[in-house]
Amino acid sequence: MAIVVQKFGGSSVANPERIKAVAKRVVEAKDRGDDVVVVVSALGDTTDELIALARQISERPPKREMDMLLATGEQVSIALLAMAIHELGRPVVSLTGGQGGIITDATHTKAKILHVNTDRVRRELAAGKIVIVAGFQGVTPDYDITTLGRGGSDTTAVALAAALKARECEIYTDVDGVYTADPRVVPSARKLADISYGEMLEMASLGALVLQPRAVEVGAMYNVPIHVRSSFSRETGTLVREERVVEKDLVVTGVAHDVNVAKVGILDVPDRPGVAYRIFSALAQEAINVDMIVQTTKEQQTTDMLFSVSRDDLARAKEIVEAVAKELGARDVIVNDNVAKVSIIGAGMVSNPGVAARMFEALAKADINIQVISTSEIKVSCLVRAEDVLKAVRVVHEAFGLSQADPEAGAAL
Amino acid sequence: MAIVVQKFGGSSVANPERIKAVAKRVVEAKDRGDDVVVVVSALGDTTDELIALARQISERPPKREMDMLLATGEQVSIALLAMAIHELGRPVVSLTGGQGGIITDATHTKAKILHVNTDRVRRELAAGKIVIVAGFQGVTPDYDITTLGRGGSDTTAVALAAALKARECEIYTDVDGVYTADPRVVPSARKLADISYGEMLEMASLGALVLQPRAVEVGAMYNVPIHVRSSFSRETGTLVREERVVEKDLVVTGVAHDVNVAKVGILDVPDRPGVAYRIFSALAQEAINVDMIVQTTKEQQTTDMLFSVSRDDLARAKEIVEAVAKELGARDVIVNDNVAKVSIIGAGMVSNPGVAARMFEALAKADINIQVISTSEIKVSCLVRAEDVLKAVRVVHEAFGLSQADPEAGAAL
Repeated sequence: MAIVVQKFGGSSVANPERIKAVAKRVVEAKDRGDDVVVVVSALGDTTDELIALARQISERPPKREMDMLLATGEQVSIALLAMAIHELGRPVVSLTGGQGGIITDATHTKAKILHVNTDRVRRELAAGKIVIVAGFQGVTPDYDITTLGRGGSDTTAVALAAALKARECEIYTDVDGVYTADPRVVPSARKLADISYGEMLEMASLGALVLQPRAVEVGAMYNVPIHVRSSFSRETGTLVREERVVEKDLVVTGVAHDVNVAKVGILDVPDRPGVAYRIFSALAQEAINVDMIVQTTKEQQTTDMLFSVSRDDLARAKEIVEAVAKELGARDVIVNDNVAKVSIIGAGMVSNPGVAARMFEALAKADINIQVISTSEIKVSCLVRAEDVLKAVRVVHEAFGLSQADPEAGAAL
Repeated sequence: MAIVVQKFGGSSVANPERIKAVAKRVVEAKDRGDDVVVVVSALGDTTDELIALARQISERPPKREMDMLLATGEQVSIALLAMAIHELGRPVVSLTGGQGGIITDATHTKAKILHVNTDRVRRELAAGKIVIVAGFQGVTPDYDITTLGRGGSDTTAVALAAALKARECEIYTDVDGVYTADPRVVPSARKLADISYGEMLEMASLGALVLQPRAVEVGAMYNVPIHVRSSFSRETGTLVREERVVEKDLVVTGVAHDVNVAKVGILDVPDRPGVAYRIFSALAQEAINVDMIVQTTKEQQTTDMLFSVSRDDLARAKEIVEAVAKELGARDVIVNDNVAKVSIIGAGMVSNPGVAARMFEALAKADINIQVISTSEIKVSCLVRAEDVLKAVRVVHEAFGLSQADPEAGAAL
């Protein structure tokens, strides 16, 4: 029997009616003859409510205790979903992250999965049960409860699928797949039938919020097919997998944008070896992810260093960078959270010169100023003013002919 | 350094302000030089809210999943209290029941503590930390989460105190001690300075809700002094301990009442050996506690069996008893939840004839009909109509001269 892992996000289990609907969906999969492992997030806004509760006690609660608090959210979900499946007459068992064998490091609130011990899950599957595992959480080797950070439930699901050698990991969400751009911004955006891990990774990192980047990385590493689909319809979604079969002639696969971005700049740092190391190792120690690093060296032997972080991390990043800047003798630190990122992604980009230029041209024609540019082999990202970002997505999407209206999408590039 | 265990109930941690007040109280104890272990219940009505949520999914949720769900209540409390103590600048760590070493059997929703593994708690205390342990919950040897049933947090606290050889277990509650009767019913009731385990056990079992009977049993078994006191005042409460020092001349220590009672009767059971065994083993298998068993054998070789259960258990008890009654060939099963229990408790009772008679006399004078009587060496209980119970408490309290107004309290008996 093949194993299928299904992951349902918070909006899919926001209330008792939706939980019952999810239970039906899970039972259908089991009745098709598969062994089913289900990963669920906390109900609706539970996590935000718990964070608000903690803030009433402490402005800066210890991270270990935040994890202790937040992990209750998923524990409620798994118990309720197990009850709903039991109500449908199927044997079922719920497991916390720790019981499900999700062993992590001790980086509380942003823990990384070290390994997955599948003994208990396999034992319960062998007993004919549907197994529900709490997403977003794990335990350290000392049994301390950890959480995996934003969107960690996706990572739990894909890691379990990898460890169990599942046939597929289905990610149920409130959109029905991965689009060439956010359909709320670009109504003519097309749904992709499939997409490679690399492209999905860029899409995910860049703000197409359907799938957590770390989950995609794990999927790529263990070659787990990830099926992104809607929990509210039966339609096939988008398959994330190694080989793109369809649309391989597309140079640009999609346009992503991210508004959870802030810009940090350190101005006039004396240009010595080790400067970048000092700054970014200090941030890494605090588990702050940095993106889009740009360094410009001036005539007077000083350097400006610009980079972006997520807005949630801005306050802490500023503190850390100001301390380091003082040590290094920099002139000033600037921060700006009135920025957003727009990006084009496509595996075919590397062999097509002029792709970046076409993006810059589209933005220029729309009178949108580019603040920072960063490129990789399969993407080009531009930081723009926050108020320009939606317009930027639309004009870039159009410039690359990605709309449904255009059957020759991308082929002309 | 001596270890003190402090237990705070749900009303003591009902909101962020009260949690902060509890944190201060804990820190005061730590600053007096003791090692402090704190046990907390779920916030305010959390447990009831979770039960209501489960009922929206299933009328009869699996008990294992109920435990998974309910255990989140205390996990929220311990995390928030840890944050509040951290905010006061003291090192602190919160532990779930499982992390705190509370190992139980697998009787979900009514689990019994098998043993307490104090390794982790001792390690954290040795590191100078205040240790917070979730009440009401534990894990089976297989790491499945269990809950201890009603008032289980008291049991957690006393069991931890016993295992840690604590100097004292303080039970903080919303009353300031144990009274000769419920002060809301008998305004002139007196607070007892101390009381023996045996008397407290009867008081607790009989509905004086300040302390869980199982907690008292554990306290008696390991000789843990239990100090019942108010979380809203600094006053000394009532000390539950082996030797009563004060008031030992009192024949009747107090009057207890319990409205969470229902009566079950099996009428005209053929009077054969093993009848009682069949009925009560079936109930025991479902972990239903039975109290006040009365059997009356009639001329026609049949027996009536009457007993009381808690109202929560009535529906299940009825089902079980009806099945057994059918097998045994009984004529009928009756149930009645319009009853309540009133009891007198006193260690001196056994050597004082006429105590029970004085109680019956007081009830008769007040025109209160007695439905079932049950006695032990240190108590006499009567089942009366629910609407009569408060009057019953008052007249019995008066009959034994227990009021504050009477300095000769009880001496005349």
